[in-house]
Amino acid sequence: MAKWVYLFKEGKADMRNLLGGKGANLAEMTNLGLPIPQGFTVTTEACTDYYNQGKQISDEIKTQIFEALALLEEQQGKKFGDVSNPLLVSVRSGARASMPGMMDTILNLGLNDDAVEGFAEKTGNKRFAYDSYRRFIQMFSDVVMEVPKSKFERVLDDMKEDKKEELGKKPEDTVYDTDLTAEDMKQVIVKFKEIYKEALGHDFPQNPKEQLIEAVKAVFRSWDNERAIVYRRMNDIPGDWGTAVNVQAMVFGNMGNTSGTGVAFTRNPSTGEKGIYGEYLINAQGEDVVAGIRTPQPITKLKEDMPACYEQFLSIADKLEKHYRDMQDMEFTIEDGKLYFLQTRNGKRTAQAALQIACDLVDEGMITKEEAVSRIEAKTLDQLLHPTFDPQALKEGNVIGSALPASPGAAAGKVYFTALDAKEAHEKGERVVLVRLETSPEDIEGMNAAEGILTVRGGMTSHAAVVARGMGTACVSGCGEIKIDEHAKEFTLGGITFHEGDYISLDGSTGKIYEGDIKTVEATIGGNFGRIMEWADSFRTLKVRTNADTPQDAANAIRLGAEGIGLCRTEHMFFEADRIPKIRKMILSKTVEEREKALQELIPFQKGDFKGIYEVMEGRPVTIRFLDPPLHEFVPTEEKDIADLAKDMNLSVEEVKATCDNLHEFNPMMGHRGCRLAVTYPEIARMQTRAVMEAAIEVKEEKGFDIVPEIMIPLVGEKKELKYVKDVVVATAEEVKKEKNSDITYHIGTMIEIPRAALLANEIAEEAEFFSFGTNDLTQMTFGFSRDDAGKFLDSYYMSKIYESDPFARLDQNGVGQLVKMAAEKGRSVRADLKLGICGEHGGDPSSVEFCHKVGLNYVSCSPFRVPIARLAAAQAAIAQK
Amino acid sequence: MAKWVYLFKEGKADMRNLLGGKGANLAEMTNLGLPIPQGFTVTTEACTDYYNQGKQISDEIKTQIFEALALLEEQQGKKFGDVSNPLLVSVRSGARASMPGMMDTILNLGLNDDAVEGFAEKTGNKRFAYDSYRRFIQMFSDVVMEVPKSKFERVLDDMKEDKKEELGKKPEDTVYDTDLTAEDMKQVIVKFKEIYKEALGHDFPQNPKEQLIEAVKAVFRSWDNERAIVYRRMNDIPGDWGTAVNVQAMVFGNMGNTSGTGVAFTRNPSTGEKGIYGEYLINAQGEDVVAGIRTPQPITKLKEDMPACYEQFLSIADKLEKHYRDMQDMEFTIEDGKLYFLQTRNGKRTAQAALQIACDLVDEGMITKEEAVSRIEAKTLDQLLHPTFDPQALKEGNVIGSALPASPGAAAGKVYFTALDAKEAHEKGERVVLVRLETSPEDIEGMNAAEGILTVRGGMTSHAAVVARGMGTACVSGCGEIKIDEHAKEFTLGGITFHEGDYISLDGSTGKIYEGDIKTVEATIGGNFGRIMEWADSFRTLKVRTNADTPQDAANAIRLGAEGIGLCRTEHMFFEADRIPKIRKMILSKTVEEREKALQELIPFQKGDFKGIYEVMEGRPVTIRFLDPPLHEFVPTEEKDIADLAKDMNLSVEEVKATCDNLHEFNPMMGHRGCRLAVTYPEIARMQTRAVMEAAIEVKEEKGFDIVPEIMIPLVGEKKELKYVKDVVVATAEEVKKEKNSDITYHIGTMIEIPRAALLANEIAEEAEFFSFGTNDLTQMTFGFSRDDAGKFLDSYYMSKIYESDPFARLDQNGVGQLVKMAAEKGRSVRADLKLGICGEHGGDPSSVEFCHKVGLNYVSCSPFRVPIARLAAAQAAIAQK
Repeated sequence: MAKWVYLFKEGKADMRNLLGGKGANLAEMTNLGLPIPQGFTVTTEACTDYYNQGKQISDEIKTQIFEALALLEEQQGKKFGDVSNPLLVSVRSGARASMPGMMDTILNLGLNDDAVEGFAEKTGNKRFAYDSYRRFIQMFSDVVMEVPKSKFERVLDDMKEDKKEELGKKPEDTVYDTDLTAEDMKQVIVKFKEIYKEALGHDFPQNPKEQLIEAVKAVFRSWDNERAIVYRRMNDIPGDWGTAVNVQAMVFGNMGNTSGTGVAFTRNPSTGEKGIYGEYLINAQGEDVVAGIRTPQPITKLKEDMPACYEQFLSIADKLEKHYRDMQDMEFTIEDGKLYFLQTRNGKRTAQAALQIACDLVDEGMITKEEAVSRIEAKTLDQLLHPTFDPQALKEGNVIGSALPASPGAAAGKVYFTALDAKEAHEKGERVVLVRLETSPEDIEGMNAAEGILTVRGGMTSHAAVVARGMGTACVSGCGEIKIDEHAKEFTLGGITFHEGDYISLDGSTGKIYEGDIKTVEATIGGNFGRIMEWADSFRTLKVRTNADTPQDAANAIRLGAEGIGLCRTEHMFFEADRIPKIRKMILSKTVEEREKALQELIPFQKGDFKGIYEVMEGRPVTIRFLDPPLHEFVPTEEKDIADLAKDMNLSVEEVKATCDNLHEFNPMMGHRGCRLAVTYPEIARMQTRAVMEAAIEVKEEKGFDIVPEIMIPLVGEKKELKYVKDVVVATAEEVKKEKNSDITYHIGTMIEIPRAALLANEIAEEAEFFSFGTNDLTQMTFGFSRDDAGKFLDSYYMSKIYESDPFARLDQNGVGQLVKMAAEKGRSVRADLKLGICGEHGGDPSSVEFCHKVGLNYVSCSPFRVPIARLAAAQAAIAQK
Repeated sequence: MAKWVYLFKEGKADMRNLLGGKGANLAEMTNLGLPIPQGFTVTTEACTDYYNQGKQISDEIKTQIFEALALLEEQQGKKFGDVSNPLLVSVRSGARASMPGMMDTILNLGLNDDAVEGFAEKTGNKRFAYDSYRRFIQMFSDVVMEVPKSKFERVLDDMKEDKKEELGKKPEDTVYDTDLTAEDMKQVIVKFKEIYKEALGHDFPQNPKEQLIEAVKAVFRSWDNERAIVYRRMNDIPGDWGTAVNVQAMVFGNMGNTSGTGVAFTRNPSTGEKGIYGEYLINAQGEDVVAGIRTPQPITKLKEDMPACYEQFLSIADKLEKHYRDMQDMEFTIEDGKLYFLQTRNGKRTAQAALQIACDLVDEGMITKEEAVSRIEAKTLDQLLHPTFDPQALKEGNVIGSALPASPGAAAGKVYFTALDAKEAHEKGERVVLVRLETSPEDIEGMNAAEGILTVRGGMTSHAAVVARGMGTACVSGCGEIKIDEHAKEFTLGGITFHEGDYISLDGSTGKIYEGDIKTVEATIGGNFGRIMEWADSFRTLKVRTNADTPQDAANAIRLGAEGIGLCRTEHMFFEADRIPKIRKMILSKTVEEREKALQELIPFQKGDFKGIYEVMEGRPVTIRFLDPPLHEFVPTEEKDIADLAKDMNLSVEEVKATCDNLHEFNPMMGHRGCRLAVTYPEIARMQTRAVMEAAIEVKEEKGFDIVPEIMIPLVGEKKELKYVKDVVVATAEEVKKEKNSDITYHIGTMIEIPRAALLANEIAEEAEFFSFGTNDLTQMTFGFSRDDAGKFLDSYYMSKIYESDPFARLDQNGVGQLVKMAAEKGRSVRADLKLGICGEHGGDPSSVEFCHKVGLNYVSCSPFRVPIARLAAAQAAIAQK
């Protein structure tokens, strides 16, 4: 027979998977001999069983719960539902990973019409007893039986209103809960039970065991409530872990002035500073601290109020920190002068505090550098690298909407609706937030000018999101609630209409959108950051490169620790005002000769871009990806631009329009793009090869850097296709080498971003010197999810627990990962020294970086601001593997 | 040292891969002791080597060619380039598979300024000798050196013009080649050599060995000319096979009235009728027969002209047919009364003839039934099942354009531009050809009314193509050359403008479009077809089902041998005029309740459809696929329809438009469709389940058929996703069973059409009772090719030999096939009795059917008219595997 229930004294800290974090720590503290209200834990496996049985608790589990309850009764010398000395318990969730506030809690369970009398007698406090009972009814009804809380609150409000006259108060005065007497509470209880019966058709359960089982079910059920699902997705917590349930004897901090309750940390969770930090309330229960009815006291004041308790508290806190070798977050209650610990856990902390604490613990000799590196949650580093809102200013901020946190950082500025307007305003010295239905590559200069970008359409990997992350500009995307009128230059959100020039503020880390101009604070990277990064670099084996298309981005990435460029997109260079007419000319060319002529004009620009990048990179590797997007992204849509182009090309407006229309595609993501462009127009690849090779040779000569160009052919699905384009590249490269009398070496590789390429990687590796996994496209095609459209249905998938995380943000290791692994193995089977990297969005996601380490890639490449995250995650993966 | 060159006497028939078909047969005939002008074959491997060496013939191969040449000289008693008795040879291509007319031939090679004199002396015919030389120069220049033929023709024309006076002809008279004398030819030769030198910068090669090597190179090169590539793609011939080259001593049929040349078949290639069939010309060379200058005589006339030769010919022809046990296609030449065979091969034949010949050969005891079945080229059966153009009428047809042969058959009718116009015209008794930019599901009734469909956009698997093939209606798609004005109801093609009501004709088997009303001939399926099919069915193990959405289609498919329905699409049912408003109402619903109400109204229709199909299928299995297309395919686009809908729904026109706009997707193929609709709107799956189950139970009861519904969930990529939808289906199905008090059993399965589903097939099989491979979508996503857009670049891929066939027509066994195989194995590993089928377009493609047999699928499903093809291909696969 499986063991589904553990007394606290039967568990220990390393049974977290079975008992949940809270249960394991309560067990550990019990074993340490600390003052813990005793109880037992129903395991996470029981939760899984509950779901497997179609949301039923099996008889076996119920039996074990009641056996544990009997032992608890014996140990406490109280009996469940007893008229003279009833046992009351709390019932709380506790998953493997801490999910504060996400799931349900029920207090004072065990009270019924009889037990409340015994409780009153035992405590000598009738009002306290009846108040506890009515609180229990309310909480049980709301949390367990889903009877709306408001119905109960209305009864209390009515009662207080009725009391005004009796209490001699004026109509405008307030009546407090504390003004209500024991008798009042008795009446409230009667009315509460009536509400219960009316709503549910049966009496409020008087059997405490029935109450208990229903409460346990409610906790299990709460594992799958909407906010828990959202929290899990945000924190990468698997949906099949389940939650444990902790049933614990109640202690009361609200039994008078020798009682109290509080929470405290062993170090400051905001700054990491060493020293006890927390607050408490005399004569209160935990929920009162949270509710904020009274202002709590700083924990140090406890020294004056109850010196013995304080000393005991300090001593235990110190013991716990040493025991767990980490900063602790503790809940405690003092019942009539006696201190109880209700919970301890490794405390949540800001990124800044995490760094400080990790460094301090190393300096204090408590943990190793490996442990320090492993403990920093990689993705929180984002907080350190981007501006944030001033916390004071934020308090007054009015949230008008929220959408996808597409690129982190806080931004405030005046609203502009076109790239051109944004650019002009920026040039006048204004701070700008660019608001668009969706961005397109033509908006690049306006995006560059903006502090923040807000789009109505598009997901985490939309054009706006990708470009903004690359620039380090805050971006909130896919805000479907916005009603935008780009012509009238206004939008409405949260009931407010904003016109051009009005201020809004965006938090790209949370996705929140605020009214007005909220003050931001610049990012500061302190010494702790440097220390941790240095340690991380010493542990990791995976290299970290960046995705950068400009010398500015590249320089920024190097500052953040990038060791090369894994993805330099060449198309972004084409959108600048002086270049786009030339690329359009190329597209409208009718013959190879015309096209070559147009391309010829582009060479100086493209070469100049590459030289700039090679200069900044000082010999570090740079992988240059050849033209990727479909040509229709480059053609004009505005009448005026079309007319200009027609004039320039000596064509009629109709001809230009017809050509542009003809470029239309039903599914552009699977259309004429990537190396397919080079197959139909080899002259494009020739131009790009010439630009790369000339730039490399010239910078090599001018600056003496050891440059080995890496040319990457995108969207390959077949060896012969790569060979075809490669032949064009090699022929041109050799031509340039000859012209320049250079013996420079260069590498040609490909992206693996089409399922077929992964399946045939052994053949493709015969022609490729390196593979770079383009996991954005690979995810799209492996799932059949268009990244720009999936937003419309993915929420339903999260809610029904089909998928638990956004596959575009976190690599789908089961499916897409299978292809990555297969391609890596097949590729290396024919070319042992094949260099493997990843350049999709996943290169900056910690769990994906871990996967890349495990399958043996050589490097990950991510946007500049994610480089530190990738470095840390790579180190953590290496440490974990040891 | 490899052997690159074989004398005819060194080869035999089974060396076809090495020597090519022609070479192997020349060798075989030599060994049979037949009168063959001797020679040698340069192997197909030498061709491959030529390409591998960067289009160079290696010295080793050259040496072997010259060695073989020396032996030939010895055997013939003549010498290459000899002044007194020169050896002349022909140089001809000969691939493994016959590719008539696709590659190059050079005759009379070996002549030069000296040899021509010897040749003249030897033949005693100066004019003949000089004419042969000038023909050789012309052919060599054109075929080998790519000097335009027209330049030479102009010289001849000028010469004839100049001769007019001399010959006493009037200006309007014609001067013939035969009017030119030996001296004239000598002058022509001088001028021809001048042209050669001017064009190429060097003298015409006088060294016969140099001529020979250049000619061999030219033949190798011709393997990759454009028409050969196209022919290979149409006939599934791999590009890496290469061609052999046959060098053969010349014999001359143009040496007077005791000479001649001809071609003949041992049976009639059009009808299959037994008996010699062919034609010949006295005093002519092979090229004269082809050029059609004189009208050839029927072969039987040879009996009168040269009885001995005729008897010898009949005897050899009979011997060859018996030897090869198949109808032979032979070329022969009579040189001065002596008969030579230049070639024999299994003759090409019409589908009708193929059936007749196969049946006759079985009846004659010459071949087994297995051989008979194996010899019919499966895809040619199409010819028998669809109307064709009357051959006489077709001769006068004016081709105005051509595009993709999207659905076979010939059709002629009046042009209409909208589905409604087409329908109305059809109801008036007119024959209609529907011409559209592209079709959409709303056009279904107009398509049904049309004899043929012509679209400007869309590939072989576009909506028009798929639906037309299902209906058996001729369709030509993707004719980008058409300039269409749907509003003005006219289009222009081939310089002609057609208005509504003008006649055009289409051949959906060839893709050709004709002006006017060309007479068509109905398909007739004879007794031979039935015999072959019966034999095929007895050999095959793979079942053949059909894709059918209506009782009509289903009945037709059964007539053609379908054993069930593998894909019944439920969405096509929604487009009919009485249903579309209801589905639109469903889409515009704002709440689940509204949506359920709208769906409720659809149940009777959907149920009625299913009942109709179940009745026709009489208990055969029917796999019903749940709603698949994105909802935007159903919403109205016309202002009027939008207004109607708004009125009906009590919404403003703006609201309706906004909802429709909101359904827009960037990449609809990877958007909100398939089971994703059932995840977001489970009520759709509930409605469809109810319709299926009620229909099945009622027909089962009413007719007593043993119906086991098969419900197929499309576009699944994850086990939990299938489980989620399956739970909805099962709950509803059980509900219906209970209501109807039925114990009917049913199966739930899924399509494997997303790469991820194939990768995780072992997990998905835990929830699926059957898999049906949707290879259309699987091909799209595995390649990253949008089937509607790939047409724009695939031609470049064929021309550069990256891909050799359309992956949407012929299953890509290397890539997509890997996923199919993987999914089959993974699926069966957890569920041994998992039923596997394929329902993509590939189900009707012979090579894909063979693949399906090999990987162990249970059935293929294809459009009704392809059922016989699939049956035959399945039998051939089973026979081949033995």
